[in-house]
Amino acid sequence: MTEDFTPDELARLRADTPGTAHRIHLNNAGAALMPAPVLAAVTDHLRREAEIGGYEAKAEQADRIEGVYRSVARLLNAHVDEVVLAENATVAWQWAFYAQPFALGDRILTTTAEYAANYLAYLQVARRTGAVVETIPDRTDGTLDPQALEAMIDDRVRLIAITWIPTNGGLVNPAAEVGRIARAHGIPYLLDACQAAGQLPIDVEAIGCDMLAATGRKFLRGPRGTGFLYIRRNLIERTEPAMIDLFGAEYAGDAGYRLRADARRFETWESDHAARLGLGVAIDYALAIGLDRIEKRCRLLGDRLRARLAEIPGATVHDLGPDPAAIIGFTLDGIAASEIAARLTAERINLSISVPTSTPIDATRRKLPDLVRASPHYYNSEDEIDRLADALKVLAASA
Amino acid sequence: MTEDFTPDELARLRADTPGTAHRIHLNNAGAALMPAPVLAAVTDHLRREAEIGGYEAKAEQADRIEGVYRSVARLLNAHVDEVVLAENATVAWQWAFYAQPFALGDRILTTTAEYAANYLAYLQVARRTGAVVETIPDRTDGTLDPQALEAMIDDRVRLIAITWIPTNGGLVNPAAEVGRIARAHGIPYLLDACQAAGQLPIDVEAIGCDMLAATGRKFLRGPRGTGFLYIRRNLIERTEPAMIDLFGAEYAGDAGYRLRADARRFETWESDHAARLGLGVAIDYALAIGLDRIEKRCRLLGDRLRARLAEIPGATVHDLGPDPAAIIGFTLDGIAASEIAARLTAERINLSISVPTSTPIDATRRKLPDLVRASPHYYNSEDEIDRLADALKVLAASA
Repeated sequence: MTEDFTPDELARLRADTPGTAHRIHLNNAGAALMPAPVLAAVTDHLRREAEIGGYEAKAEQADRIEGVYRSVARLLNAHVDEVVLAENATVAWQWAFYAQPFALGDRILTTTAEYAANYLAYLQVARRTGAVVETIPDRTDGTLDPQALEAMIDDRVRLIAITWIPTNGGLVNPAAEVGRIARAHGIPYLLDACQAAGQLPIDVEAIGCDMLAATGRKFLRGPRGTGFLYIRRNLIERTEPAMIDLFGAEYAGDAGYRLRADARRFETWESDHAARLGLGVAIDYALAIGLDRIEKRCRLLGDRLRARLAEIPGATVHDLGPDPAAIIGFTLDGIAASEIAARLTAERINLSISVPTSTPIDATRRKLPDLVRASPHYYNSEDEIDRLADALKVLAASA
Repeated sequence: MTEDFTPDELARLRADTPGTAHRIHLNNAGAALMPAPVLAAVTDHLRREAEIGGYEAKAEQADRIEGVYRSVARLLNAHVDEVVLAENATVAWQWAFYAQPFALGDRILTTTAEYAANYLAYLQVARRTGAVVETIPDRTDGTLDPQALEAMIDDRVRLIAITWIPTNGGLVNPAAEVGRIARAHGIPYLLDACQAAGQLPIDVEAIGCDMLAATGRKFLRGPRGTGFLYIRRNLIERTEPAMIDLFGAEYAGDAGYRLRADARRFETWESDHAARLGLGVAIDYALAIGLDRIEKRCRLLGDRLRARLAEIPGATVHDLGPDPAAIIGFTLDGIAASEIAARLTAERINLSISVPTSTPIDATRRKLPDLVRASPHYYNSEDEIDRLADALKVLAASA
C-alpha cells in the first residue's frame, strides 16, 4: 500500500522547491525544478572549488562523490560496479550502444516509440555495418507487443533496444515482458529509461534489462549535464568501449592497454563533480519520498489533466497505452502548438513542444503534428493542473 | 610590446580570486582557481534554473549561451561554425580522433610527450584497424624534431596528432612547425592544447592545425566539466562523427539521416549550460587581460621557481625544452612525491603529482619517477613562489 501525500507534506515539498513560487512548472519531462538541497549541493561544491581548487575540493568530497554511484545503484537495484556516470543520458546510451559489435545482416529490434537520438544511431550503425533496424509491432493499445517480439526472434537478432516511456506522451511500454524474452533467448537488451527515472520505481533485476540509460534533469529533479548508465556485470567484461581514455583504461607497456574491471571503463577522467553531487542528492531525495508514491501521484495528476482536456472542445490527447504516465501530448484545433506554448509561457505556465522528428517512427505512422507536452510531477498541485486546463479552455474558445 | 602586470592590477586580480585568501594555489595545470565572475556565471544560472526551470532558463539566456561559441572562436582565431563545446577536453579530442578513418597499415604519428589518454586511444584504434602508431623523434633539447617528422612522411601517414605542452612539465612543442609540414603534405593535424589554452595565445591559422582540443578548467580558469574542439571548415563536411544524436543529425525519412553542416554535428543535445556560461566568462576574462601578457608572466613565475629549485640540494627539475611554460616537474632526493605533496597540502600549498602512466612514452624513455608538479598562473604572486621554495628547502634539509 502506498501512502498518499498529505497536504502538509505537499506544502513542505513545494516550499523546498523555489521554482513553485515563480512558475506553474509542467515541463518535468524536459527538466524538472531542482529542489533546494540539489541546488545547494551543486553551488556549495562550486564555491568550494573556487575557494580551495577544483582537484582539492574533489579530494575533500571523495566519499560523497563515490556515494553518487551508490545512490544510482540503490535507485536501480543494481550493484555499484555496474554503474557509469555520464554527462547526459544520450552519452550514456551511446556508450552502451556503440560498444555492441554489429555485422552485416545482424538485426536490431526497436519500438515505434523510440527516441530519435537512438534511432539515428541505429541508422548510422546500419549504414556502417550492414546491420538492419526493425520495428517491433504494437498491440492495438499502442504498447509494444511482446508476442510479436517473440515471433521476430532468430539467431541474427543482436540487440533489443527500446524506449520505456517516450518523449511525446504517456505510453508505458512493457519493459519487463521484453526482458523475459531477451533473457530467454540470451539477447542483449538496452532500455532507454530517460522519462521513467524519477517517475516510477526501476528494478533492473525485475525488468531483466542488460543496459539502462537515464538522465538526471527530468523526473529525478537533478541538475542538467548529468546522466547514468547501468550495465549488467556479466556484460561488462566482454564489452569494449568504443572510445577509451586513462580513466577507463591504463597503459600496460608491451601489452598495450588494460580496461578497468568495472562499468566505469566507459567514463573519461574529467567530470563535473558539482553536478554529480547534485545528481546524488536528487536521487536520495526521490528515494526518501518513495518512487511508488511518486508514480502514483504522477499518474493521478496526469489523469486529472487528461480528464480536464476531455471537456475542452477541440482538445485532443494523443497519448497511447492503458495506464499512461505523467506525460500528456495534446493539440487544440486551430491553434499551433508553438502558439499555445507561447501564450501559456506569458501566463507563467511552463510547457514544451514535442516535434515529430523527436519520435520519427511513431510520428510518421500516426501522422502526428507538433504536440504540446504537459508533464506534471508530484510537487505540482491539483490547482496548478486546473489552472492550466482553465487557460487552455480560454485559448480553445478563442480559436 | 607586452605590458607587465602592475602591482595594483595583480592586487585587483587576486581580490577577484576568492581562493587566493585560502590557498597558495600552484595546481593550475590541474584546475585553476575560478575568478569570481566565472563562479557567479555558473551559480547564477543554476539558481535561475531552479527558479524558472532548466529549459526556460536556457531560452532566457540563449544569446549568452550562443556567445560561448563566439568566445571560443575569438580565443582560437577560428570561425564560430568551427567550434564544438564538450564536457571535457578528452571527449572533445575523442570526437575528433575517433572520427578519422583508419585502415590496415595507416600510420599515426605522435610525440614522446603525448598524453596517456590520447595514446591509449591510438593503441585501441591500432588494435581495431591495424593502423600503426609511431613516435616522432625529439631534438636534443627534448622538443619534437620537425626535420625528423618531415623525414617520416609518406602516403601512409593518415594523421599527425601531438600534445603541445605535456601534463608533466614545461616542454613546449613546436606546434606551428608541425603545422607547416602537415599542410604541405595535406595530412590532418590534431593538436592537444589542454595545457596551452589560457596560458599562451592560440591562433589556429598561425599554427596550421586542423583540429584542436582543450579544456576549460586548467589555465583558462573555467569550471570543471567544460572543454571544446576546433575543427577546420574544410574538414567538417567530410568528417562523420563516430556517434550521433538528434542535435548533430536529423531524421531524413527514406534518406536516413542528415548531419549538421557545422562543427556542432559532434555534440549531443543535452548539455550543462551553467558550466558553459562559466566557460564563456572565463575565456572573455583571459582575453581581456591578454594572452600574450599572461604567457609572459606565467613563464616569469615558472622560471623563478626553477631558479629557486636550482638552489636546493637534492632538488631536480625534469622539464625539457629551451623556453619552458609554467609547469614545473621536479623531485627531491629521498622524499617521495606523494609525501612532498601531502606535507605541502598541510601548509595550504596546492600542488599535484604527475605519475609516469600519464605520459607513457616520455616516462618510459626517461625512466621518470612520480614527479611533483607545480604550475603557477598569472594571479600567483612572487611571494607565493618563494614560500613554496622555502617550504621545499626545509623538506629537503630534513630528508
